Amino acid sequence: MSLEFFNDSPGITDVPGFKVGAVGCDIRNKGLERLDLALIVAEQPCAAAGVFTTNDVKAAPVRFCQKVLQEANGVLGIVANSGNANACTAQQGDLDAATSAKLAAQAVGQPGAAFLVCSTGRIGELLPMAKVEQGIKTAASRLSTAASEGQRAAEAILTSDTRPKTCTARFTWQGQTVTVAGIAKGAGMIEPNMATMLAFVCTDAVVSSADLKAALKQATEQSFNCVSVDGDMSTNDTVIVLASGRSGVKVQAGEPALQALFQKALDQVCFALAEKIVGDGEKITKVVAVEITGARTRLDAEKVARAIGNSLLVKSSWFGEDPNWGRLADAAGYARVGIDESRLDISYEDVPAVIQGRPLPENKPRWKQVVKARRFAVRLNLNLGDAQFRLLAADLTDGYVNYNKSE
Amino acid sequence: MSLEFFNDSPGITDVPGFKVGAVGCDIRNKGLERLDLALIVAEQPCAAAGVFTTNDVKAAPVRFCQKVLQEANGVLGIVANSGNANACTAQQGDLDAATSAKLAAQAVGQPGAAFLVCSTGRIGELLPMAKVEQGIKTAASRLSTAASEGQRAAEAILTSDTRPKTCTARFTWQGQTVTVAGIAKGAGMIEPNMATMLAFVCTDAVVSSADLKAALKQATEQSFNCVSVDGDMSTNDTVIVLASGRSGVKVQAGEPALQALFQKALDQVCFALAEKIVGDGEKITKVVAVEITGARTRLDAEKVARAIGNSLLVKSSWFGEDPNWGRLADAAGYARVGIDESRLDISYEDVPAVIQGRPLPENKPRWKQVVKARRFAVRLNLNLGDAQFRLLAADLTDGYVNYNKSE
Repeated sequence: MSLEFFNDSPGITDVPGFKVGAVGCDIRNKGLERLDLALIVAEQPCAAAGVFTTNDVKAAPVRFCQKVLQEANGVLGIVANSGNANACTAQQGDLDAATSAKLAAQAVGQPGAAFLVCSTGRIGELLPMAKVEQGIKTAASRLSTAASEGQRAAEAILTSDTRPKTCTARFTWQGQTVTVAGIAKGAGMIEPNMATMLAFVCTDAVVSSADLKAALKQATEQSFNCVSVDGDMSTNDTVIVLASGRSGVKVQAGEPALQALFQKALDQVCFALAEKIVGDGEKITKVVAVEITGARTRLDAEKVARAIGNSLLVKSSWFGEDPNWGRLADAAGYARVGIDESRLDISYEDVPAVIQGRPLPENKPRWKQVVKARRFAVRLNLNLGDAQFRLLAADLTDGYVNYNKSE
Repeated sequence: MSLEFFNDSPGITDVPGFKVGAVGCDIRNKGLERLDLALIVAEQPCAAAGVFTTNDVKAAPVRFCQKVLQEANGVLGIVANSGNANACTAQQGDLDAATSAKLAAQAVGQPGAAFLVCSTGRIGELLPMAKVEQGIKTAASRLSTAASEGQRAAEAILTSDTRPKTCTARFTWQGQTVTVAGIAKGAGMIEPNMATMLAFVCTDAVVSSADLKAALKQATEQSFNCVSVDGDMSTNDTVIVLASGRSGVKVQAGEPALQALFQKALDQVCFALAEKIVGDGEKITKVVAVEITGARTRLDAEKVARAIGNSLLVKSSWFGEDPNWGRLADAAGYARVGIDESRLDISYEDVPAVIQGRPLPENKPRWKQVVKARRFAVRLNLNLGDAQFRLLAADLTDGYVNYNKSE
């Protein structure tokens, strides 16, 4: 029953029953060398669930996926492209998303099958559908379970990321092995027009779509919803999980221990992918865990963590390795959850900077050391209750501004 | 009845009945040359009103001013310092704020009089009270109505601002002249630890404290509450208005035309000071008016304007003179006021980039010209209702990040 975890694994091809194919089809108009289209295909229609951006302005593929997940009876696979987000593309964008799914189904010889579609890249421009069509056909001809193709798929969805993001969890239940594996692309601007997070997780467990949705929701809340690079929420953010059932291991209400194990595997995969996304944030130099405890409610703790994690002043000071706790207190205060300054504790890792609202300047040499690390935690105890929240955030660099100042 | 407006005026000394004195007393530990303490003193106790930061973590002088405005029967003046915010300074901070007020009253020979206290600067450090005491005494000995001393007061409250911010409005009512004049410091970090906005407005109109509060609230909502440099709200933000009554012109309920004129003068002074604050934002290169129309409610319009005006991606693109309307649409969408993408119009000044959700790439050469100016407007019509909001925002530069990366 123990869970094994593999970081930087081949990704989707670790899961029995899934094939992938990835190609370059020049969606960026910069040549065919760069991979930009991936197909993920199961042997038969899968249970599927997804979580999506809550932005009012949703890209066409997001609207398309939401519709498919409501209406389709099983999903055969995913077609994903980078280089163009198919966002703010009006009705033609909706047509192009639907066409991509149809082309994928035809290319794998199952014209009636449902495919999900995900795009990431430039916004406001139509997909070059002739290239996409050719790309889907070529990717279908490459479909394989080879680890190398799994790696290519993880690369094909990247935009401004500097490295592919993959991981795999595996456990055994009554002699059967169950695998959960995923790939992701990060919250960097795309080309560099738009921050988008995409993650695809596949498993060979037998899970109903309803149970899968509940499990994914739980995993997402503790992973992708607890990271922030620049606070900008994209039009395309998407996390999808497909369950092929090929292992024969039925994750269902009657088996709470198995359910817990599966949840743990899914949680680990999502959390590891989310961490990779922050760690590869655009031009960042620091990953900082903002740990809020002692809040009245989890939502209060989250508001404080996000105010800190998205403050330009705080993020700039992290870049400068300047342990400026005044900016933490200020940002915590404007989250307006009713902080009592005279109860507030602030520390860098285990070094207190403020206790009960009273500064401890004598500790400064020690906390200045803490912030020199690439990863560290800032901890605020509001001392108002028992709720907590942990946000993984990144610093803000001059490199980020210069990278994103133009298209 | 016509209203005259004077930009970059001497400031407070324009108002009959107010004297000012400004000195350098080395609060920053960097020598006496830099002015860092100002006294504003009326001939007799004034009607007074204030608006303050809504941050949970309020600096000691903010708490002190709120108490004085509730309890005191008239306010004789203001003592303001830069270089130290007296924020996050626990009980000693409260004592120091009260002591500063008392020292000011003694220094002007009216030991029982009420003074307001405002501080801006470093956070988490105690005020150097020996220096403050000497500064207050020296400032009191300099009290004057000379324009040059008015200018010195406007300089003494600055921190990372690059220039003093002053203006004056004047109108005549039944042969009597009424003056409204103000000074402000901007939303730049302090030393550079904390963004704080301070503004002091004085008038010789006769106005009750209650009417003054209502008038200030209205003026603030259309000025200081409609600007954003970096989205960080300080522990010290304060706007104070003092009315000496020396002109003898009674602004009261029975005189609606006079009330309107006074409101207009106050609005103009506050708006001009707010504009100066954005225009002098830290290391900015652009001032952008984010004009949202067609919202269902004013609050909806404000949420969309602030999402855009505080988006790192949007602000970086302004810095790069890149008219990236996709980022505007994305940020508008995550304000989550229920935008319908198919109704959304976006334009740069009068050049449409998107109409009813449909991009107009043929206009790109024209809108690229618009964003080259130091000041321009981006306009979003949500086409959902009649409400609107206008936010004055600034770009985000590599200079800002590097300036704020360390203490």
